[in-house]
Amino acid sequence: MKSLEEKIVHDGFALGTEIVKVDSFLNHQIDTAFLQLIGMEFKRLFGDISPTKILTMEASGISVAVTTAIAFDSIPVVFAKKTAPNTMIEDFYAADVKSFTKGTVSSARVAKKYLSSADKVLIIDDFLAHGEAGLGLLSICQQAGAELLGFGAVIEKEFQGGGARIRQQGCRLESLAVIQKIENGVITFR
Amino acid sequence: MKSLEEKIVHDGFALGTEIVKVDSFLNHQIDTAFLQLIGMEFKRLFGDISPTKILTMEASGISVAVTTAIAFDSIPVVFAKKTAPNTMIEDFYAADVKSFTKGTVSSARVAKKYLSSADKVLIIDDFLAHGEAGLGLLSICQQAGAELLGFGAVIEKEFQGGGARIRQQGCRLESLAVIQKIENGVITFR
Repeated sequence: MKSLEEKIVHDGFALGTEIVKVDSFLNHQIDTAFLQLIGMEFKRLFGDISPTKILTMEASGISVAVTTAIAFDSIPVVFAKKTAPNTMIEDFYAADVKSFTKGTVSSARVAKKYLSSADKVLIIDDFLAHGEAGLGLLSICQQAGAELLGFGAVIEKEFQGGGARIRQQGCRLESLAVIQKIENGVITFR
Repeated sequence: MKSLEEKIVHDGFALGTEIVKVDSFLNHQIDTAFLQLIGMEFKRLFGDISPTKILTMEASGISVAVTTAIAFDSIPVVFAKKTAPNTMIEDFYAADVKSFTKGTVSSARVAKKYLSSADKVLIIDDFLAHGEAGLGLLSICQQAGAELLGFGAVIEKEFQGGGARIRQQGCRLESLAVIQKIENGVITFR
């Protein structure tokens, strides 16, 4: 998605060799006009499938999951929770997820009643880096017996291997911008 | 908002005397069609103001903040972060926020570059209970010198006093459903 690559270059910036900061439009401040375009692009790329639900990870996946769900005729979104509130009393699926940017391991949880073998799932997330969050969402889908139709990532950092790990699971992956490397403040796209 | 009250009764349920579970459509699974109606209702109620930004709290405020922002001609959303990733290297505004449902105190943070004295802010959140999160967002607005135009809550639990605390700060508050009490599994609206 050319306009996304341009936005990453103009509004984001590279931090070392591993991190691209896009909190000006994607994961702290949210450019809601642009995120609607992203939702429409996912709808175009996955135009041949008919998901019943979008699955994502809190917190920064929620906004793009919502605009994508709206593009798919307003299907429901389910977001995995990384902390369990005391209001979460029912059975849930869980997967351990390591965060490289936060240095933590958390348990991602989805209440069983919101994902089942009747669901056809499209996973949407803001970033695909090492693939930890993505594999956690795949595991939750498998535990639920849901049919996984695809995985859409806004930004894939190819050099961190998450994309390869998701595809190895036999999952169709569409990434709107694929970063090959970050070097001396320059972001190179595939 | 009558349709919201009906949805709370039909799709949600009361837990003890303090908690209303609405994770079937608002804060775990998200009914994106209904959340667009909620966004339009906030736009109608706040039709006389012209905010430049919607401010909310991660994670469950994000979805309704996004649909409300879209209703306001797709203005940006900024969500306060409750954990600081190692990518958050810049100056930020912070406010301590106690969560009654999670039993934790966390520091809500907004990077200074995304909120300034040039901004006119509408705060949107899913719940207004004791008002801890809301007062934290008010504090962040004040620290930024931003003009606070109003506060929109999807569900206000009046008996927990958060609404009164927000209004005491001189802030205009609009809640789409106001719960007076929860007793024996019955939810009573104002």
